[in-house]
Amino acid sequence: MNGLLTDLYELTMAAGYFEAGKASEKATFELSVRRLPVCRNFVIAAGLPEVVDYLLNLSFTPEEVDYLRGLPQFRNASAKFFDYLRNFRFTGDLFSVPEGTPLFAGEPVLTVRAPLIEAQIPETYLLSAITFPSLVATKAARCVEVSGGREIVEFGTRRAHTPEAGVLGARASYIGGCSGTSNTLAGFRYGIPVMGTAAHSWVMSFPSESEAFRQLQRLLGEHTIQLIDTYDTLEGARQAAKLGKPIWGVRLDSGDLSSLSREVRAVLDEAGLADAKIMASGDLDEYRIRELVRGGAAIDAFGVGTQLATSGDAPAMGAIYKMVELDIGGIHRFTSKLSDAKVTFPGAKQVFRDVARDVIARSGECGNGEALLRPVILGGRLIEPLPSLEQARCRAARAIANLSPALRELEVTEPWPVIYSRELRALIDQTRRNLAP
Amino acid sequence: MNGLLTDLYELTMAAGYFEAGKASEKATFELSVRRLPVCRNFVIAAGLPEVVDYLLNLSFTPEEVDYLRGLPQFRNASAKFFDYLRNFRFTGDLFSVPEGTPLFAGEPVLTVRAPLIEAQIPETYLLSAITFPSLVATKAARCVEVSGGREIVEFGTRRAHTPEAGVLGARASYIGGCSGTSNTLAGFRYGIPVMGTAAHSWVMSFPSESEAFRQLQRLLGEHTIQLIDTYDTLEGARQAAKLGKPIWGVRLDSGDLSSLSREVRAVLDEAGLADAKIMASGDLDEYRIRELVRGGAAIDAFGVGTQLATSGDAPAMGAIYKMVELDIGGIHRFTSKLSDAKVTFPGAKQVFRDVARDVIARSGECGNGEALLRPVILGGRLIEPLPSLEQARCRAARAIANLSPALRELEVTEPWPVIYSRELRALIDQTRRNLAP
Repeated sequence: MNGLLTDLYELTMAAGYFEAGKASEKATFELSVRRLPVCRNFVIAAGLPEVVDYLLNLSFTPEEVDYLRGLPQFRNASAKFFDYLRNFRFTGDLFSVPEGTPLFAGEPVLTVRAPLIEAQIPETYLLSAITFPSLVATKAARCVEVSGGREIVEFGTRRAHTPEAGVLGARASYIGGCSGTSNTLAGFRYGIPVMGTAAHSWVMSFPSESEAFRQLQRLLGEHTIQLIDTYDTLEGARQAAKLGKPIWGVRLDSGDLSSLSREVRAVLDEAGLADAKIMASGDLDEYRIRELVRGGAAIDAFGVGTQLATSGDAPAMGAIYKMVELDIGGIHRFTSKLSDAKVTFPGAKQVFRDVARDVIARSGECGNGEALLRPVILGGRLIEPLPSLEQARCRAARAIANLSPALRELEVTEPWPVIYSRELRALIDQTRRNLAP
Repeated sequence: MNGLLTDLYELTMAAGYFEAGKASEKATFELSVRRLPVCRNFVIAAGLPEVVDYLLNLSFTPEEVDYLRGLPQFRNASAKFFDYLRNFRFTGDLFSVPEGTPLFAGEPVLTVRAPLIEAQIPETYLLSAITFPSLVATKAARCVEVSGGREIVEFGTRRAHTPEAGVLGARASYIGGCSGTSNTLAGFRYGIPVMGTAAHSWVMSFPSESEAFRQLQRLLGEHTIQLIDTYDTLEGARQAAKLGKPIWGVRLDSGDLSSLSREVRAVLDEAGLADAKIMASGDLDEYRIRELVRGGAAIDAFGVGTQLATSGDAPAMGAIYKMVELDIGGIHRFTSKLSDAKVTFPGAKQVFRDVARDVIARSGECGNGEALLRPVILGGRLIEPLPSLEQARCRAARAIANLSPALRELEVTEPWPVIYSRELRALIDQTRRNLAP
């Protein structure tokens, strides 16, 4: 499954490794955060279940192998290589930080240790499977951080880069602290609370707004949220208020949310609906939410769509997947890329996090604090069930609460200290000397 | 299939329409480009096959219906509604502009005409299925436009928002004019030319760069592209040149691409490899490509990843899906949203494009030029196979070539004239009067 869902060069390299007799060499690849996304002080790791599912099921159908066989790039590959692909399975190891872990620039998210070809092919899929949910979880955490305890609901599937990305984005948003999502499949699949009542088309489909509101209330009872901005927002608020209870509240989706929310609040209060809440949506992001909260908007919950589901201001992050170690019949070769700004560091690693800093060490070292990278798959088998979604969400919340106030701000600040252990620095120097021309 | 892959409010509205006796009303919804994405003069429509596939297969499994039944929002829905969902099929009509059509602000991409519930539920999925590929096709067209005839290859799956988005992004890039993709599954599934040779890990896995280059050349022959920047780019170029032919060329992935490309060109030329090409990659977008081309970089092909696969500078677009008409037992009601900036216009529409302008008219009107919206699904059935991917790509290329030079620039310019027909304007006025409080 998914064997071809990778860049072609992973597969031409696979053929090349095979033909060069390197199929038995054991490689360690590291997926790491080279740079934080713009305007971010940390990134919340997410996406591990997709990585695990991919590695455990990675294979090629006969039709896929035939397709490769017909490509000019594989003209010189041997029949044995195609047999190898037909029987391909991932037999290696995966180490990963748990979902919900905040990470900083330079830190590994996961490590794959496997026969060279098995470790090479997953590069493309793993990068995509980790970076997108991590970006969304991070964006969600930023919205939650500035909401002053108000609920943030993920509304963005319609803007996600494919509907399925909407489902995974909803899951990532929940890890980042959203209290629910509008994505129904995310509720069905992951048990995330789902929210939703009616759109403008609902209101427009009835002869009058008040009839639309009445019908919705009949259906939803105390879960009713009346969308009041189809024609005139304050008139809509009055129509909703006239119907009285049961009602959860109303939603504003356009206009000056700050002043409208206060006017609507007054309408509701006057009608004896002090318990009725006001939800706001429409082009929101963490900056806008902060502004509304600081400005004293009478908003009890925010629905965030486009900016959250696409991580709009930072739709990509500079994560990399690099070979760091190669075991050729028991002889270890440490590998790194030394040209220009794209330097990578050699050797399998561990990250130790204590109260004052993170130490990136060699994988065998002892260290202080929490060791972030943990075994997930060994010898091609999942060693135990992954932490639940709720656990990932709690882990993120706890870890973010432990960050300094400055790191939790929206603006970029002095980075959290991340240093290399003495042993790792020695290995870097040694690798550099060995590679010097 | 995919019944739950939608916002919950589509389904609560479905229940509400059903309970209010509106299931037999026939609605027309329009998916349109409210605003162009930032920095764009047009957007290339793409994603139609996903829309068709979704509508033809839309259904709910028994487990999905049970899930909805257990949600508090459906407590007051009747058993008949859940029976309705169990037997749900899309029986309506879809009209769409062909893939590869440039569209401008305010123009419809597609129209759904179906019983109200069947037209409402697809909103979320259709918006996502259309906007993402349209954004990527548009970004690709911009890169191709400034490349001066050099090949643009899509390299971005690893940055796409899910691996599957990478596949659909590769397809959209091809519509936009890319000559190929690194995504192997896109090649297998859609017949797009696939490209790829080796990564830095290939070079690092061998004891020396020259050995790595020799092995790659043995495998790929005249398709060989040596990645020369793992250690030292110019030394890499000399190593590649020393091996002579067969070779397609070399790839630069870091450093000052402009000056390095000229130095590498000199190395290749001196070695008698004047035919060998230079490909560049690494954080490229249409602005960088234009700068390199204008600056006389010796680059023959560009690999574009992150920015293309995420439409980095415009990762979302303001498309909307709005009810424009409702047929209640033969009586037509025209619907529009009138509050604030989010105005929508009533009535099913057609767009006529001639050499001087686009005219948005009512669907039954005659007009001059090409009628862009065409029937695709009628009565729940696909009326004929969709145009091929190659046809969509040609359509885009021809249509872009017909745009004025200013509209083809990267910078935003005077918009293409889009006007409303007299009949449509009359309908707008009439609807506004009817809705006035």
